[in-house]
Amino acid sequence: MANDQRLHSLLQRFETRDRTALARLITLVENRAPEVGALMELIYPKTGNAHIVGITGPPGAGKSTLVNRLIARYRAAGKRVAVLAIDPSSPFSGGAVLGDRVRMTDHYRDSGVYIRSLSTRGSHGGLSRAAREIVKLLDAFGNDLIIVETVGVGQTELSVMDLAHTTIVVMVPEGGDGIQVMKAGLNEIADIFVVNKADREGADRLKAELEMGVHLRQAAGWNAPVMLTQAVADSGIEALVAAIGKHRDYLSQHPDPAREREQRAREFIQVLAAELEERSTRALGNGGGLIGEVREGRLNPYSAVRRLIADRAALARLLSDNAED
Amino acid sequence: MANDQRLHSLLQRFETRDRTALARLITLVENRAPEVGALMELIYPKTGNAHIVGITGPPGAGKSTLVNRLIARYRAAGKRVAVLAIDPSSPFSGGAVLGDRVRMTDHYRDSGVYIRSLSTRGSHGGLSRAAREIVKLLDAFGNDLIIVETVGVGQTELSVMDLAHTTIVVMVPEGGDGIQVMKAGLNEIADIFVVNKADREGADRLKAELEMGVHLRQAAGWNAPVMLTQAVADSGIEALVAAIGKHRDYLSQHPDPAREREQRAREFIQVLAAELEERSTRALGNGGGLIGEVREGRLNPYSAVRRLIADRAALARLLSDNAED
Repeated sequence: MANDQRLHSLLQRFETRDRTALARLITLVENRAPEVGALMELIYPKTGNAHIVGITGPPGAGKSTLVNRLIARYRAAGKRVAVLAIDPSSPFSGGAVLGDRVRMTDHYRDSGVYIRSLSTRGSHGGLSRAAREIVKLLDAFGNDLIIVETVGVGQTELSVMDLAHTTIVVMVPEGGDGIQVMKAGLNEIADIFVVNKADREGADRLKAELEMGVHLRQAAGWNAPVMLTQAVADSGIEALVAAIGKHRDYLSQHPDPAREREQRAREFIQVLAAELEERSTRALGNGGGLIGEVREGRLNPYSAVRRLIADRAALARLLSDNAED
Repeated sequence: MANDQRLHSLLQRFETRDRTALARLITLVENRAPEVGALMELIYPKTGNAHIVGITGPPGAGKSTLVNRLIARYRAAGKRVAVLAIDPSSPFSGGAVLGDRVRMTDHYRDSGVYIRSLSTRGSHGGLSRAAREIVKLLDAFGNDLIIVETVGVGQTELSVMDLAHTTIVVMVPEGGDGIQVMKAGLNEIADIFVVNKADREGADRLKAELEMGVHLRQAAGWNAPVMLTQAVADSGIEALVAAIGKHRDYLSQHPDPAREREQRAREFIQVLAAELEERSTRALGNGGGLIGEVREGRLNPYSAVRRLIADRAALARLLSDNAED
């Protein structure tokens, strides 16, 4: 009850575009609070208006500077912008990304821009789920553009890119990564390629490699353009904004109802699986019964799961709202 | 029934150490076949004998060469060795790891060595689950040592390291990553540090940094040693094997029953969550009912999940073995 009231009051403030309420709702999602399901159900009808842009690329490609420049352009056009930065807490790149983040503070005082980092530390499976739900919150809040930035080095990060309408893959010339990108199938997820730091040697060669890759995969449909930018010098950004707009137009002119149905079905299964996992974790956290036997090593986890699934009443009790009944 | 028979016959061959049967059982796990639960339950009692060594580190640190050298030492000592290489299919390192893999073929013809790659491509959440189950198969097969190698750049890869009894973090001098490693909390998961390519400049400084980090975290218990190796020249490998043995002895002399109970309980919840997810995916894949409404956009996924959970009978039907009853 107390939780219901808290949620209700936060939602009322959320609807008046209260940024503190938004921040607290995001924190609920991050912490996997029990009321997340109810929250998402309530805000769901308000979603679907934002354009979601995913930006990924290796550490040091200048993604955050690029995001900074994009924010400035969209703000100048009167758009509300939100950024969700997936901080990989990667053992081998964590530091650099943290440094990048600081540069985004240019826009921290602008009330039309909302920036949030989501740390992956310690949240193994839950990250893409949390990211998806936070994006929905940012969408329902009334943002026109939502940028999701990842370092794109792990599967979790790649799965976050599934959320985006338009996926931008940022590369730099010296990486010599053109071929790698193709091998790894990144050309399949990129709607737009950006060669940043385009003043450096090799930019044109990388552009040509990427264009060749795009050409090879192309049957019909959208042709991923390769844009040259120098984010630090604010160069090439307008053309990138135009390319994003063009891709958005392309999507609205080429609806894919089969794909949308598939996405909705997949989302349902993901939400259900997450809910079942969270419910069993909470219920089993109290110990006793089967989990007690497993904990003491008297029963192996696979046998325990088989027994639990065979006992419909026990399973339903475990997953229901009132564990005690 | 046909599946039961196939499983039974594979298990009979598995028990005679038939490598083809092992490979086919691993494939079942990789493909999330419905009989995986039954398989794991059957082999579970045979597990618990292998020592599981996790090896992680950045691309290019020489992990695969190191693994190659370790295999040679353990084989010379008459041990059965298995390697599970988690291939990250990372957009920014995929190629290099693929190249490394080839070098491990030294041992492909030795029947006491079993090497398997597990690709992360397309298996977002399921990777750590599959890795855990494959390690159990390799354990039940009678391997003495199981090496799990990852590139350790994503959360999925880090969670795989949870499986290991002994976790080895491999670094190279030029990375200058000593401080990064500390920041990222890698010093908390490392039981042994390896500074590979130790002939290069900066090896001693990196060793000193790592030792300082180990010293700072240390309250009581195991002190992670920092080993210098040159895997290419087969140098420092014997000392590393000795360090692994020492850590294994330490673990057996310092049992931690509370931690073991916790691990068993966590494994139960993970297995249960995975089983529930797979069952709902299969049941819902048939379409109709709630998922049909979600697919057509008439019902949002969160409302559908709430309804399903509220309807105990429907939920139990969905998760039971016979979806039609």
